[in-house]
Amino acid sequence: MIKEIVKKIQPIDEEFVKKGRSRTENLIIPYRAMGLLNDISEQLCGIYRTCDIEIERGAVFVMAGDHGVVEEGVSAFPQVVTCEMIKAFLNGEGVISVLAKKEECKVVVCDIGTKCQFQNITSSYGDFVSKKVVHGTKNFLKDLAMTRSEAENSIIAGFELADEYILKHKLQIVATGDMGIGNTTPSSAIGVVFTGESADKMTGRGTVIDDATLYKKIKIIETAINIHMPNKNDPIDVLSKVGGAEIGGIAGVILAAAKNRVPVIIDGLISTAGALIAYNLNKNVSDYIFAGHISQEPGHKIMLKYLAKKPILDLDLRLGEGSGAVLAMSIVKQAANMFCNVSTFDKAKVSR
Amino acid sequence: MIKEIVKKIQPIDEEFVKKGRSRTENLIIPYRAMGLLNDISEQLCGIYRTCDIEIERGAVFVMAGDHGVVEEGVSAFPQVVTCEMIKAFLNGEGVISVLAKKEECKVVVCDIGTKCQFQNITSSYGDFVSKKVVHGTKNFLKDLAMTRSEAENSIIAGFELADEYILKHKLQIVATGDMGIGNTTPSSAIGVVFTGESADKMTGRGTVIDDATLYKKIKIIETAINIHMPNKNDPIDVLSKVGGAEIGGIAGVILAAAKNRVPVIIDGLISTAGALIAYNLNKNVSDYIFAGHISQEPGHKIMLKYLAKKPILDLDLRLGEGSGAVLAMSIVKQAANMFCNVSTFDKAKVSR
Repeated sequence: MIKEIVKKIQPIDEEFVKKGRSRTENLIIPYRAMGLLNDISEQLCGIYRTCDIEIERGAVFVMAGDHGVVEEGVSAFPQVVTCEMIKAFLNGEGVISVLAKKEECKVVVCDIGTKCQFQNITSSYGDFVSKKVVHGTKNFLKDLAMTRSEAENSIIAGFELADEYILKHKLQIVATGDMGIGNTTPSSAIGVVFTGESADKMTGRGTVIDDATLYKKIKIIETAINIHMPNKNDPIDVLSKVGGAEIGGIAGVILAAAKNRVPVIIDGLISTAGALIAYNLNKNVSDYIFAGHISQEPGHKIMLKYLAKKPILDLDLRLGEGSGAVLAMSIVKQAANMFCNVSTFDKAKVSR
Repeated sequence: MIKEIVKKIQPIDEEFVKKGRSRTENLIIPYRAMGLLNDISEQLCGIYRTCDIEIERGAVFVMAGDHGVVEEGVSAFPQVVTCEMIKAFLNGEGVISVLAKKEECKVVVCDIGTKCQFQNITSSYGDFVSKKVVHGTKNFLKDLAMTRSEAENSIIAGFELADEYILKHKLQIVATGDMGIGNTTPSSAIGVVFTGESADKMTGRGTVIDDATLYKKIKIIETAINIHMPNKNDPIDVLSKVGGAEIGGIAGVILAAAKNRVPVIIDGLISTAGALIAYNLNKNVSDYIFAGHISQEPGHKIMLKYLAKKPILDLDLRLGEGSGAVLAMSIVKQAANMFCNVSTFDKAKVSR
């Protein structure tokens, strides 16, 4: 099933990127004076296979999961917060609810691996969809985080969720987000496996932990990788051994965007761990990804460098939920707006 | 008159900044996890003297002027482009028109010192107001750019324009922008005078000039400063000798914002040169300023460091017009939105 999905993902159309570049040269601005907005708009031309790229309909998929490794004491918050925050999102009380509402971006919260018990609901603040593949992962210091089949199912669940929403709501852009107490630990572990950087450099303070807890977190990541020896040439193996269900779900959302030729804005450390999984399943997905921001987590910079992505925003965020991705969505939309609606030298009768 | 204006500018209210910080600590996020958005929202509390800081009504003031120094061949574009671009703005064809429309931000284009002849008009894309104090500045390699009285009048004109709009339209936020072929040359000169950095490090390629032209531009700035010896303790003297009318106008807009306790987002090199003038008239204005972005111009980084301002965006822009400031306005509005509408731990029943 994953092989089938991955096979369908094609690179973006370089002919339309070129057409975009030539339109940029005719806009009434000095040569490429809109910098990253020029690059973004031309990438959008390649993704959509057209130079008519105005963006209206967007959604953020907030994938939620719990993590067995929190029993080792790696997080500043109790595990129950995962469920409490899902409730807050659906009551319009969370950061992602508030930012997305202003951005006119749909919020889809998906329980893909939490310990919570919720029914599917649609509130005026967003949809909640249960696609549970595990009731929290296992503690990967003692066991595989997930079985291989659970890891596969998390990717498929994320893919199916986003694929359905993209088609049903004719989404033109998607963003990824996460909720899951303890999820910087598996994300950093995934970063170590793919980039080859040390756990020491990759691991940060998450929701703010002290020095002793940070040291323990680093040792847990090192030990887990030594025990399980995840195979970096097999992303499902990595996800199963040291990952999390929401990270697999995010990888699935990214695959769905790429398959449907829709741009996807990734958020911080956890979303980028999901992007590492998706990218290593098919390198073409990189063409569809925009890095929304660079977070305070030290590993995020290393991962973005590995993906060769320049972040759109640098606001010292470290929240997750998709907050940085939705903030960046306004810049991506403005890049498209600028590209489509600014006049040309000839049309506006401006001298060169 | 300027002394009267400047005297009215008070620092922001630190009590409300503190109240803002304590609200931030209760929001359902890890400690200050929204980074710069936390800082921005708390600065807004201090500016508005309230924690009820939602922002709806904004305007960008695009100050336009021409520059005698272009006869030395410092720009890649002919001088007539200043007038052609003003027309484009009022036809909704320019970058600032297109970005501001999407941001629901009013555009006010002001001819404060161009060689153009336009009547005051109101189009559906923005207002045009003539407040002309000079028909282009003089070539400051041979003469003062403006007389002292013209320099003063440019600041007063910008102040009166923004003061009237702020009061009439109950503006909650303003942004500054510029249009003027050749205006990176006086802006860099102003930067050299106030920061003490060399013309070599301060001067960039503007609308893209070649190495020989860049070398000439640097020498012109060095020579003009040696001839005129602008007094950095007298901002009007600096503006008169090596400045420009739109730079004075921008300084006036910033003073009007500060006097009315409204935040002002500055754009790139030219707007920041205006900020240097305003800041040196009264250091309190710094409290009301947000740096919208950091541009590709090397001098901009030096000026922002002098003002101790962290830019909100870093998108490799070098257009001017207020484009970076209006893009940053969406982030400032989201900071206020997040601060006001995200729930607290107690209210949302989320565990700490």
